[in-house]
Amino acid sequence: MNDLPHGLLTPQILVELDVLERNIERVARTVSAKGLALRPHAKTHKMHEIAGRQLEAGAVGLTVATIGEALTFALHGVGDLFVAYPLWISDAQAKRIRELLSYVKLSLGTDSIAAVQQLARQLADKKDKLGLMIEIDSGHHRSGVLPDEALDVARAAREAGLNVIGIFTFPGHSYAPGKPQEVTDQEQHALGEAARLLRADGFELKRISGGSTPTAELADNSLLTEVRPGVYVFGDAQQFELGRCQWENIALSVASTVISRHEGDAQNPRRIVLDAGSKILGSDRPGWATGFGRILENPDARISAISEHHATVLWPEGQPLPAYGEQLRVIPNHVCVAVNLVDQVSVVRDGEVIEHWDVAARGLNF
Amino acid sequence: MNDLPHGLLTPQILVELDVLERNIERVARTVSAKGLALRPHAKTHKMHEIAGRQLEAGAVGLTVATIGEALTFALHGVGDLFVAYPLWISDAQAKRIRELLSYVKLSLGTDSIAAVQQLARQLADKKDKLGLMIEIDSGHHRSGVLPDEALDVARAAREAGLNVIGIFTFPGHSYAPGKPQEVTDQEQHALGEAARLLRADGFELKRISGGSTPTAELADNSLLTEVRPGVYVFGDAQQFELGRCQWENIALSVASTVISRHEGDAQNPRRIVLDAGSKILGSDRPGWATGFGRILENPDARISAISEHHATVLWPEGQPLPAYGEQLRVIPNHVCVAVNLVDQVSVVRDGEVIEHWDVAARGLNF
Repeated sequence: MNDLPHGLLTPQILVELDVLERNIERVARTVSAKGLALRPHAKTHKMHEIAGRQLEAGAVGLTVATIGEALTFALHGVGDLFVAYPLWISDAQAKRIRELLSYVKLSLGTDSIAAVQQLARQLADKKDKLGLMIEIDSGHHRSGVLPDEALDVARAAREAGLNVIGIFTFPGHSYAPGKPQEVTDQEQHALGEAARLLRADGFELKRISGGSTPTAELADNSLLTEVRPGVYVFGDAQQFELGRCQWENIALSVASTVISRHEGDAQNPRRIVLDAGSKILGSDRPGWATGFGRILENPDARISAISEHHATVLWPEGQPLPAYGEQLRVIPNHVCVAVNLVDQVSVVRDGEVIEHWDVAARGLNF
Repeated sequence: MNDLPHGLLTPQILVELDVLERNIERVARTVSAKGLALRPHAKTHKMHEIAGRQLEAGAVGLTVATIGEALTFALHGVGDLFVAYPLWISDAQAKRIRELLSYVKLSLGTDSIAAVQQLARQLADKKDKLGLMIEIDSGHHRSGVLPDEALDVARAAREAGLNVIGIFTFPGHSYAPGKPQEVTDQEQHALGEAARLLRADGFELKRISGGSTPTAELADNSLLTEVRPGVYVFGDAQQFELGRCQWENIALSVASTVISRHEGDAQNPRRIVLDAGSKILGSDRPGWATGFGRILENPDARISAISEHHATVLWPEGQPLPAYGEQLRVIPNHVCVAVNLVDQVSVVRDGEVIEHWDVAARGLNF
């Protein structure tokens, strides 16, 4: 673990450049060795500097969640973008997609006959430029259709003159202890079933796309053609606690300062309070997590509560409490929401801040 | 309930101007009728347009959480600011506080002898310009000292030549069902005990400051001199579910679009999915809450899950699912974190967007 740069205004987000670059390289190598294409999800970082490194390491393009993210990366030269989201194409969105199509190769998610018909109406003159990816529900029960409904959606698309190029799923229910292998199996099963039905009906599926960060490393190319992990670039406390990343692969942390400390008694817990709260860490906290994040300097400490500008940290018994003014690094539970809270991150190498990167697509929710 | 403006890009934050203005007026009147000063917490809104309305309605100044927020409001003409936070004054912070002092009357929180001594060292030449407010722990067990420790902190401040002008507490544990009255009593007790000890030692306390949104309306002036509610300007799902605001006082919502719908079966819940997720709603969800927010158009709907760009909404049995593309308004659980996710809000009157306001202090975590 490198030293924390001195005298930082806190809280602020730090990115350890060497760790980040190793993560990007490692996953690119692993995915490539399996014969899979890597299309990383850029919603995690929203930064040009990271997108550029991912593409350089061999990513075939980027995945994004919104048209705003797509426009940001398109205008910075990324040529192949997949909006892995079942958009509803309103008049205002149709205009923005037309603009986007003048820059990039674009694929869009969909999960219903209604959305397919709306898309065909709104972008009638651009149908040949759009690749449609049907979202399959592999057990997360959020958006997506069940495999047997996928055929109806694909047929409606064909009838409307749209080009179905593939299917995808997001196995979000893999974010729980012991789940990755089971969910990888569900993902394979759901995508396999949908692929079988669509191919039997004459659809040529160029892309079969899966893989959250927990499942991407377990995936193989017997069915899938690409994976879309996002969090792997930084790692976070959730992935660590799920066993999907190592402590030394954590590339992002929130520098924070001890602003209150209490030796505690029977009524009053022994604790320190850091100035990093939910407005920089986010407040994601799955039931199985040990707290609201982890402390890079002390794996035994537990963040028992957060509010907007406070993290309450229960310090291990027998270890002296850090001093007032001491700076510590908090590993957020869910890095995608933490990055989206700041306009810039500080890039660190060998204990020095060497650059600042803009979170270029921050806040682009539509 | 007013109509939702047509054809919005979603998700985006809407503020109903008439409701906002009524909330500002009502609380100003109630607090004033009790003989208390109102010093609203601006971390909730971070907007000049709302700060201006609060001051016009009689607020004596603003409360903020960070020096960045203080600088933003100071540069826009707010003359009296209280940073209700036990800051650690690093070299970098000391510079910013010097700048701030050239514009405004400033009071700062503290909760330790160490922080008081650090403050006196860092701002030795500005001691007479600073008002010190000692933070009391009234049972929330976050930052703050217990009443009997407050005297040691106050004496250290006096010895260091600093001006103790008052005490404050944040009764954050009032954010739970049935708690407001009990916590108001704890707040009174802790502040009362600290005030008694400090006054007996010769401290003149000009300000005794309390009151979250749940407790502010229960407070009286037998002890307190001011209250610092924040959320009351907008209301949110938490305050509604705690019984501290009415449905018709909800001034802020997130316009969103139905992007997926499922009639459901035994394995697969009956639901719609909206395009508002944790990147615009925040993910705060106390255990007692009914879900991750509420739907303004349907008080019986429940948000059972959110991810970054999805809200999964269980729709009441017997009521037809909204159509694809239909727009609905989500009331966030915790409005302070939702506002901090966007650069602008759309201001609505009579079903039309009439203005956009910048969230001027967005992301200013230090």
